[in-house]
Amino acid sequence: MSNTTNKMTTSKINAGNFFEDFHLNQVIHHATPRTIAEGEMALYIALTGARQVLHSADTVAQSLGYNARPVDDLLAFHIAFGKTVPDISVNAVANLGYADVRFLQPVHIGDTLSTTSTVIGLKQNSNGKSGVVYVRSVSINQLQQSVLSWVRWVMVHKNNLDAPAPETVVPNLPSHVPAEELSVPNFLDARKFNTAVTGGQYLWNDYAIGERINHPAGMTISDTDHTLATKLYQNNARLHFDDLMMKKTAFGRRLMYGGHIISLCRALSNDGLENALCIVAINGGTHCNPSFGDDTIYTWTEVLDKWDVPNRSDVGALRLRMVGVKNMPADALESTQITTDGKQTYHPNVVLDLDYTVLMPRKPN
Amino acid sequence: MSNTTNKMTTSKINAGNFFEDFHLNQVIHHATPRTIAEGEMALYIALTGARQVLHSADTVAQSLGYNARPVDDLLAFHIAFGKTVPDISVNAVANLGYADVRFLQPVHIGDTLSTTSTVIGLKQNSNGKSGVVYVRSVSINQLQQSVLSWVRWVMVHKNNLDAPAPETVVPNLPSHVPAEELSVPNFLDARKFNTAVTGGQYLWNDYAIGERINHPAGMTISDTDHTLATKLYQNNARLHFDDLMMKKTAFGRRLMYGGHIISLCRALSNDGLENALCIVAINGGTHCNPSFGDDTIYTWTEVLDKWDVPNRSDVGALRLRMVGVKNMPADALESTQITTDGKQTYHPNVVLDLDYTVLMPRKPN
Amino acid sequence: MSNTTNKMTTSKINAGNFFEDFHLNQVIHHATPRTIAEGEMALYIALTGARQVLHSADTVAQSLGYNARPVDDLLAFHIAFGKTVPDISVNAVANLGYADVRFLQPVHIGDTLSTTSTVIGLKQNSNGKSGVVYVRSVSINQLQQSVLSWVRWVMVHKNNLDAPAPETVVPNLPSHVPAEELSVPNFLDARKFNTAVTGGQYLWNDYAIGERINHPAGMTISDTDHTLATKLYQNNARLHFDDLMMKKTAFGRRLMYGGHIISLCRALSNDGLENALCIVAINGGTHCNPSFGDDTIYTWTEVLDKWDVPNRSDVGALRLRMVGVKNMPADALESTQITTDGKQTYHPNVVLDLDYTVLMPRKPN
Repeated sequence: MSNTTNKMTTSKINAGNFFEDFHLNQVIHHATPRTIAEGEMALYIALTGARQVLHSADTVAQSLGYNARPVDDLLAFHIAFGKTVPDISVNAVANLGYADVRFLQPVHIGDTLSTTSTVIGLKQNSNGKSGVVYVRSVSINQLQQSVLSWVRWVMVHKNNLDAPAPETVVPNLPSHVPAEELSVPNFLDARKFNTAVTGGQYLWNDYAIGERINHPAGMTISDTDHTLATKLYQNNARLHFDDLMMKKTAFGRRLMYGGHIISLCRALSNDGLENALCIVAINGGTHCNPSFGDDTIYTWTEVLDKWDVPNRSDVGALRLRMVGVKNMPADALESTQITTDGKQTYHPNVVLDLDYTVLMPRKPN
Repeated sequence: MSNTTNKMTTSKINAGNFFEDFHLNQVIHHATPRTIAEGEMALYIALTGARQVLHSADTVAQSLGYNARPVDDLLAFHIAFGKTVPDISVNAVANLGYADVRFLQPVHIGDTLSTTSTVIGLKQNSNGKSGVVYVRSVSINQLQQSVLSWVRWVMVHKNNLDAPAPETVVPNLPSHVPAEELSVPNFLDARKFNTAVTGGQYLWNDYAIGERINHPAGMTISDTDHTLATKLYQNNARLHFDDLMMKKTAFGRRLMYGGHIISLCRALSNDGLENALCIVAINGGTHCNPSFGDDTIYTWTEVLDKWDVPNRSDVGALRLRMVGVKNMPADALESTQITTDGKQTYHPNVVLDLDYTVLMPRKPN
Repeated sequence: MSNTTNKMTTSKINAGNFFEDFHLNQVIHHATPRTIAEGEMALYIALTGARQVLHSADTVAQSLGYNARPVDDLLAFHIAFGKTVPDISVNAVANLGYADVRFLQPVHIGDTLSTTSTVIGLKQNSNGKSGVVYVRSVSINQLQQSVLSWVRWVMVHKNNLDAPAPETVVPNLPSHVPAEELSVPNFLDARKFNTAVTGGQYLWNDYAIGERINHPAGMTISDTDHTLATKLYQNNARLHFDDLMMKKTAFGRRLMYGGHIISLCRALSNDGLENALCIVAINGGTHCNPSFGDDTIYTWTEVLDKWDVPNRSDVGALRLRMVGVKNMPADALESTQITTDGKQTYHPNVVLDLDYTVLMPRKPN
């Protein structure tokens, strides 16, 4: 075979978008729709150790009004999110945060998700070399129903430093998804929920605002674990996969996909939150520090708020703060913050600070 | 966000049962029913290398009277077993053994298993600090059919050393499940079984009591392999997952779930036992020594006994001893026992000594 | 239990075939048919990061005329191929190559594949200690339809050095599968193919013969990754699994299954070949150097040829050369060959040189 073919090297590679490629109100249709079925669900359990009953057993799901166990909320989220990577964050310096994440419809076995994003904000940095892009992404199923909607913002490099700065538009983002806007399936009926299926005796009424739960379990995660998960999610951000490239960076090795940390913490937090049926919103979140292969992840939860769900006496909403900690048991970490030279920053072992909302059955009146 | 929330730290964590929490005839309904489907089955093959044809191919299963390939016996067992961990063995010092494990019904794709245990024996240790708890566990499917039943006994710590010792009750356990009590599906018909599908020419008639088969294959298992498996089984015993915690123990690292060793040995023993269709009983077993990530597992089989199955001319039962060996080929281990200072113990490389029963087609008369 | 059972050690182990066991026109029915379902498909994505849309989303597959997403071509190939290992290559010195690999029918979810091989060539080596065996293997589904056909040749040890040499027969193998013999499903209709689902704007018309595409992505693969894949494929060649045995060889450790390298390169080559719908042939291939756990794999593609497909205006065929490179970005490797002492050999970082053919939608006239 020829060995001089590189004379004709061409570029059919999509380099992704740089800061100057984004425009306000631009709509981006992301590639690679994905069908999520029983294989993905089993792998998700193997990768996270998830034990949330709604996603584990058809019998439980059916007792709550579902036809079958729905796809885990976070599995669907990571797959939907992964679609945005090649267009939104492949040239990102940093993922700055997300907000207003809404779980609008259950994802059923066999559903196919497609994701579209709209640019809702732009702000060039004062250095002129990069800027912040705000996008709202929506993932729909094969019936064109919106199943997920979220905002995230990322700092993206400029490729052409001479490109003019766009008009600065910073969207107003809600601090949280209010109870009256949570999507609770009409068919869901938790009136006959039996806590024996979870082994957890505490229901919505038993949780108090300000309460902190130190979840005892810890999970050591290898590079293989987190890359298997990230490939399952079809998130192809190189920094998770290419150890050779990453060895040349300050990190020195592959980074764990932050979304998988959310999944691990959610799985670990099952002990003490057994009856948190499903996630209905992520109000905001920060990946405070990176995680790497062989880190051991722990988590604690703080109850931030609790709400009635309009027109429902069977379930209530709990707004929770889930803190992920690496290489240190959750109860050993008093505060997520440290003060160095008068400045507050995250404790170096804190890897996640997530504000999210779950549905939980209430005690019968 | 607040960083002083731990003033309100509460305990919603279920600490599991200590020795004094168990009572004779106590019935415990275990949490987290689980639907087992095609995802779990594919993962099981990837994690073990299993090639048993009944679980590999619908065509073979159908030729034997099944509607489709049933769930691997051991996959079902590990999932059913995992349910008991939070209530029975989370505070265990040691898993001492199991007996009278019966595979009562095939597990079909999509079946949901729930497990219940009954305390059938209690014996406080003479030191007053722990005791042995015997439980019979039964796992049922969504049709309320019993699919698995087994006895195990574990040594459990006391939490309150002042709690009075219970009356000692030690159950009579059978040495093995007798042939006339094996559950053989009525629909199973092996009269037309074709050994070409397994590549193994030996049938029930060809095995002799006392015969030993050294299976040549070895398999190196990483921490990721065994933790993926154990998470798939939703067995949340911390000592398999939390390397940070385990580093402080005498083991110095995570322990491999012993049940997964059974699966690996069963998969490795396919060479020489190709026509062992399915497991109908585990008569007893011991995890002789711990296994860790990066161990290489080998196995040999001894034929302990062979039985006619009542009213069946197409299949017979073989009672087998499966010995798991680590880091040493099976044929290099002459005996499972060593004698040190006049005392017999297991050879330090022996990790499993299991007595189980399989069904195998017979030669046509 | 007895510890002297090895006195009765028997050999029920099938040692596989040695060179003298093969005969021209011999037909070998391989064991362990396998049903491929959604679990295998999800695992394949997790193990490779595959994003080819036809295999990712039912909606895309349906828009092209399929009932649902078909099984990935290479997943089916590896499973079909794995069946031949115990009979053909378990005593092989080397896998020398394959040719004339034809993908004859889509593999649908739930299909069961069985593989049969016919010996089509034999050539004893001049040293008298080994020989080359050529086999054509065909894999059929449960409807007895041929879904895959391929030729491979392996060098196999003789066990009995006194066995006479067979008559030398070396089959004529085609350099490639010609366009008019490619199997394109009648139901496939790419006239309405929408490149938005892949994110790749280039269609068949846009590729030029001689063009080289350096795919940017790299993927680091652990021993766990590749052994999980190889176990999923039920390929039980010991050198992939038994680290203890391999430590005694010149390699010093487990070898990665070469077929999995093909899959990784195919997945990595999605960037720049987004619209390559499916593989219809592998014309030839060489595993140029071994790969091991922790290698990082990169790939580049050269367009070897492009053909009309008879009677089709919607799709064309591209003949591609896919070169796998380890531990060195694709664009850093100018040539696959190096010259040492006047002799050309593969560059030591080149692990794969594969010649294959894909279908790609054409621009509407």
